[in-house]
Amino acid sequence: MAHIKMTIQYDGTRYSGWQRQKKGRDIQTVIENAISKIFKKDIKIRGAGRTDAGVHALGQVASFKVELKMPPAVLKKVLNSLLPEDIRITGVDEIDDSFHPQYSVKRKSYIYYVCIDEDCQCFIRRYVWHYPRQLNLSVMEESLSLFKGTFDFTAFSGSTNVKNKIRTIYDFTMQMLSELCFLDMKIQGNFIKFRIEADGFLKYMVRNIVGCMIEVGRGKLTHEQIKKAIQKGERPKPLQTAPACGLFLEKIFY
Amino acid sequence: MAHIKMTIQYDGTRYSGWQRQKKGRDIQTVIENAISKIFKKDIKIRGAGRTDAGVHALGQVASFKVELKMPPAVLKKVLNSLLPEDIRITGVDEIDDSFHPQYSVKRKSYIYYVCIDEDCQCFIRRYVWHYPRQLNLSVMEESLSLFKGTFDFTAFSGSTNVKNKIRTIYDFTMQMLSELCFLDMKIQGNFIKFRIEADGFLKYMVRNIVGCMIEVGRGKLTHEQIKKAIQKGERPKPLQTAPACGLFLEKIFY
Repeated sequence: MAHIKMTIQYDGTRYSGWQRQKKGRDIQTVIENAISKIFKKDIKIRGAGRTDAGVHALGQVASFKVELKMPPAVLKKVLNSLLPEDIRITGVDEIDDSFHPQYSVKRKSYIYYVCIDEDCQCFIRRYVWHYPRQLNLSVMEESLSLFKGTFDFTAFSGSTNVKNKIRTIYDFTMQMLSELCFLDMKIQGNFIKFRIEADGFLKYMVRNIVGCMIEVGRGKLTHEQIKKAIQKGERPKPLQTAPACGLFLEKIFY
Repeated sequence: MAHIKMTIQYDGTRYSGWQRQKKGRDIQTVIENAISKIFKKDIKIRGAGRTDAGVHALGQVASFKVELKMPPAVLKKVLNSLLPEDIRITGVDEIDDSFHPQYSVKRKSYIYYVCIDEDCQCFIRRYVWHYPRQLNLSVMEESLSLFKGTFDFTAFSGSTNVKNKIRTIYDFTMQMLSELCFLDMKIQGNFIKFRIEADGFLKYMVRNIVGCMIEVGRGKLTHEQIKKAIQKGERPKPLQTAPACGLFLEKIFY
């Protein structure tokens, strides 16, 4: 049996998330159906982790075992021909049996885009949070360091069965962009790009941290309140969970 | 009564086209409903011309008359707040009564994107024609001039009630791009960008001309066949009408 590692890109707009579900249109099932069709039997895949409904991925990873009688590059081609165009397999590799897409993860990174202009260009609206407000960017930048390090992130977690809520955020950056692109067209404006890298993330954790940064920018949350929220494991108030559309699973590090 | 000219951008993916329809979700009706809501009465708008289902616009134009009691910039803001985010009003101006969005048109331009790589990145797939084939680009470039000038374009028209099918194509260009963009990410690949400017276009004319260029690139149509098709007013064979998703109404010139 060959152990196949896939790298996957998807536009999450039309999907109810990564995870297999009884109802709804999830990405895992769509990929499993395509693989099962190729190998003419029921095949289940294991993902590196869930992404919520509407969240996108640049480098999701999943694996499965199968009797492989074609080169990985051919499997990639056949798979893509069976998948809808908003799910693309960007890599197919044979990998050690010891590899586990979820337990072997060392780090993950996410990206989040916000458009803070009054108008948001219609061709990027599925991929950014349109939040047309004045934000104090320097106070926001000063807050980045509050999140870096090893903490119990209960305060920024959605309800979950996961017991250990201690995570280590290695990197958290914020970049102001005055230009984004669409095809070969430039879109002038004011955009914020967040990037966060950690050993793992709790449910809604990135979206709650981005939401928290926005409240800081609006002057609704202070550095002290954030520190206390983390210490006490209580969700800071006010806090709006940032919408799914601006979020991209960037990379899984093994 | 003020005469209001609007410039409009839209992502046509979810819509059944510009033109008001009994069934389906057309862009004209969505905008009329928003305007009628603002002015609390039934208001109809006139567009510069139709776009088909799935076609996008960077600079569609429409106008309407109304008793205007707010500055145009405020109207623009209110309108955008009522419209779905895939339809954006990018300009609102008061204009002469003599202006007619359709009859005053001097020229229109369209852009069309094709991705000719085996894989097409999932975030741009709604905006390009994914056509993964070998194309003879230099023969295609030589064909551009065949379309420029004043001709009866019956051969490239869908069925229509329009009687006069003579149009003048002022400009028709083709550009190879090795990179497109998505947000701030570069997408390497092989893309063709067509741009066509004329005094007007027949139904499906741009999509048929692009389809014809692709057949030329595949060696299925010769320059002679195209010349004959135009002369005789007969659709060349083979000819696939290029899909709507790659097409953008770029600009209306008055």
